[in-house]
Amino acid sequence: MTTRERLLIDVNHEIEMLRQYLGTSGHHPEVGEFSEIMAPAKAYWTYPDVISPAPHVFRIAGEQKIRDLVIYHHQLLFASPLKDIFGDSEKRFEIIANRTADFHVEACGGPKYYSSVRGSASLGIRHLPFTITEADRELWLDLYAKSLVDTQFPLDAGEIYWRWIESVSLRVINRRGRALPPERVSFNQAMIKARELAECAL
Amino acid sequence: MTTRERLLIDVNHEIEMLRQYLGTSGHHPEVGEFSEIMAPAKAYWTYPDVISPAPHVFRIAGEQKIRDLVIYHHQLLFASPLKDIFGDSEKRFEIIANRTADFHVEACGGPKYYSSVRGSASLGIRHLPFTITEADRELWLDLYAKSLVDTQFPLDAGEIYWRWIESVSLRVINRRGRALPPERVSFNQAMIKARELAECAL
Repeated sequence: MTTRERLLIDVNHEIEMLRQYLGTSGHHPEVGEFSEIMAPAKAYWTYPDVISPAPHVFRIAGEQKIRDLVIYHHQLLFASPLKDIFGDSEKRFEIIANRTADFHVEACGGPKYYSSVRGSASLGIRHLPFTITEADRELWLDLYAKSLVDTQFPLDAGEIYWRWIESVSLRVINRRGRALPPERVSFNQAMIKARELAECAL
Repeated sequence: MTTRERLLIDVNHEIEMLRQYLGTSGHHPEVGEFSEIMAPAKAYWTYPDVISPAPHVFRIAGEQKIRDLVIYHHQLLFASPLKDIFGDSEKRFEIIANRTADFHVEACGGPKYYSSVRGSASLGIRHLPFTITEADRELWLDLYAKSLVDTQFPLDAGEIYWRWIESVSLRVINRRGRALPPERVSFNQAMIKARELAECAL
């Protein structure tokens, strides 16, 4: 048995964040007990609706533009701390990037390149072996925002596409590393972040 | 950046488990799209009420019995694959075991040994640095079931205690490793498991 991974988390900071978020001390004054002892039922993760990008994005942007976007995004991922998911093999990286492009073309309203070969995408399940935190999702999204700008993806298709990937990405997080639930990222926020990233050398 | 941990997960098995659970193919026939593209809002993790063991368990079992139970359980943890959470130091292990005993005595209705020193327990947050899967929780619970039997914990206090730790333990899982939500474990199931473990050399 190898040593299990530890995340660098400032526990006291996270407890403070939760207190501020809840507006309480974390205690239940009416019973004088810890929240853990008396905590009521709650849903910690509430996933929002996933909003399909089909058929608009395929109609507006077309297959080649979608493929270029996904491949460019994967190149950014491969140069980022998220690269471990692809392993060491460039060949494997290429297979994954092309397969993802097939899926995105189909999801956006194009030909059934993915489902005809692989069936259901089940993205959350397919990513279970790989640790994906809230921060990993945010980096993945930031690099998508940069990709939309850098590949000059049509802006109106980009906004519909963003709503899809942002809502889907919440469901791929499988490692909770924060006290608070993951945050939504609007298309406007994404475009601001993309401009910031453009000013930095990446 | 070190390589991220990978869990050994049979993805196709998990997809099949989810299909059986949902009773569908994973596709939405009415729209002819993947579930990931059109998935409706849902709460994946729904935590049940946490049921306090206070004041009954302290009144029935008393402080020493609760301390013995927690320390025994920690010794089993330290000899299990979950031992990484304690690091390499026996001294550190002892501090954690005693602190946990303080917390459990207080939670069960005894003196405020824990909160007077450490404040809110915030168990979920305090465990965030350590990867804890559904399977880790089940092993933790199995070793508690064994501890209740081996330390001859009073049976009626044991059942109240179990309801508390079983409901709390769901909230400490921070790494999803399965397609399906974590399962509830009743006191009866726990006692059956404890008898099975008693028959194995541990």
